[in-house]
Amino acid sequence: MNGILYGIGVGPGDPELMTLKAVRLIRENRVIALPGKKPKDTVAYQIASAAVPELEHKQLIPIHMPMTHDKEEQKKHHREGADIVEAYLQQGKNIVFLTLGDPAVYSTFTYIQRIVEKDGFQTQSVSGIPSFCATAARMNMPLAIGNEQIHIYPAVHNLSGTLPDSGTYVLMKAGSKMDRVKEILRKSGRDAVMVENCGTGKEKVYFHVDEIPNTAGYYSLVISRETRLK
Amino acid sequence: MNGILYGIGVGPGDPELMTLKAVRLIRENRVIALPGKKPKDTVAYQIASAAVPELEHKQLIPIHMPMTHDKEEQKKHHREGADIVEAYLQQGKNIVFLTLGDPAVYSTFTYIQRIVEKDGFQTQSVSGIPSFCATAARMNMPLAIGNEQIHIYPAVHNLSGTLPDSGTYVLMKAGSKMDRVKEILRKSGRDAVMVENCGTGKEKVYFHVDEIPNTAGYYSLVISRETRLK
Repeated sequence: MNGILYGIGVGPGDPELMTLKAVRLIRENRVIALPGKKPKDTVAYQIASAAVPELEHKQLIPIHMPMTHDKEEQKKHHREGADIVEAYLQQGKNIVFLTLGDPAVYSTFTYIQRIVEKDGFQTQSVSGIPSFCATAARMNMPLAIGNEQIHIYPAVHNLSGTLPDSGTYVLMKAGSKMDRVKEILRKSGRDAVMVENCGTGKEKVYFHVDEIPNTAGYYSLVISRETRLK
Repeated sequence: MNGILYGIGVGPGDPELMTLKAVRLIRENRVIALPGKKPKDTVAYQIASAAVPELEHKQLIPIHMPMTHDKEEQKKHHREGADIVEAYLQQGKNIVFLTLGDPAVYSTFTYIQRIVEKDGFQTQSVSGIPSFCATAARMNMPLAIGNEQIHIYPAVHNLSGTLPDSGTYVLMKAGSKMDRVKEILRKSGRDAVMVENCGTGKEKVYFHVDEIPNTAGYYSLVISRETRLK
């Protein structure tokens, strides 16, 4: 019988934000895939191994999918990643694929999962805490209450500048484009908070738009609420 | 010294989706607040006690905040809830307030937290898995990949019918208004999935708009992606 591919979210950074299910599945399985060239250098490994030290002695498989805007190149990497995974599944071994945050939220796991499912294998996703929830918790603020909407934008350079009037904005992966983010927020007359590397030793917190630097790291997240809570 | 108010998300239903931090804080503290009239009847208690059986022997405090659209009535209930909490904090006791899903996402904890903070006490939020992540995981589908946006709507009756063209829609708390949801989706030419009581024994799954019944329970969630994954 073929193995199962598990896509497991390890959460946003704090190892204690891993779920019981993530911990159990890592413990119960021998083959662990990590997104990167060297498994032990990945952020996902650093998070998970702090919560589950025995991870160190598992069979760690690197799935290297370098960032590129070339669609053909991307496809090739996804196919290669799926091939590595499928070789283990065919041997009847489960694979636990660790991803940052939640596997349903902008995760590279999705691409591998899609191919592996098409090829007839069984896959299962296990939710993790998304970065925007952890950032709101860090700031002791809600993302939304009552009837408020939440709008999540992963790519600021695509924004036309016409964001909806109402609801909370969550701006992700905007690190290198913070000047653009600040411009959009100022236009909308909104304030915002920004957290870089939330829940890690390198965490930085900004409480107002004007404090936010023009460039920041990849793991930066902006939350802008329509109204400030009184 | 005053105690600390912890707002802890217990996730969407499956006790294994609780975080290590939630489990630790429940274990380490004696006073646990639960949103409802009878603590042991609440969904939050049922989830948390399955993961942390010793919860049964803790001091369980009911915080009753009945649903109402009367703003003054709401305010009164929130003030009463905060008073109960503050009485313990003043005795130097921490309170662990359990909420469904994530405390930053449409949680009643936010209202209590806001008052308690204003009154000068320390509070801390601990993220939980939001229902929309768990629903996506249940369906083995992403909420979003690449540059796709995510739009979360908590109150369908407020929607004008002009949803954005692009991105994923998440429609929450729409159980009693599913006919309206289906109408909006049909207008937009989109298909959708719906899961009721995700991760519990009463779970029901619908794979297409046309399968969705006109009324469903409170814990129903619709996900509509702009494009189907091929």
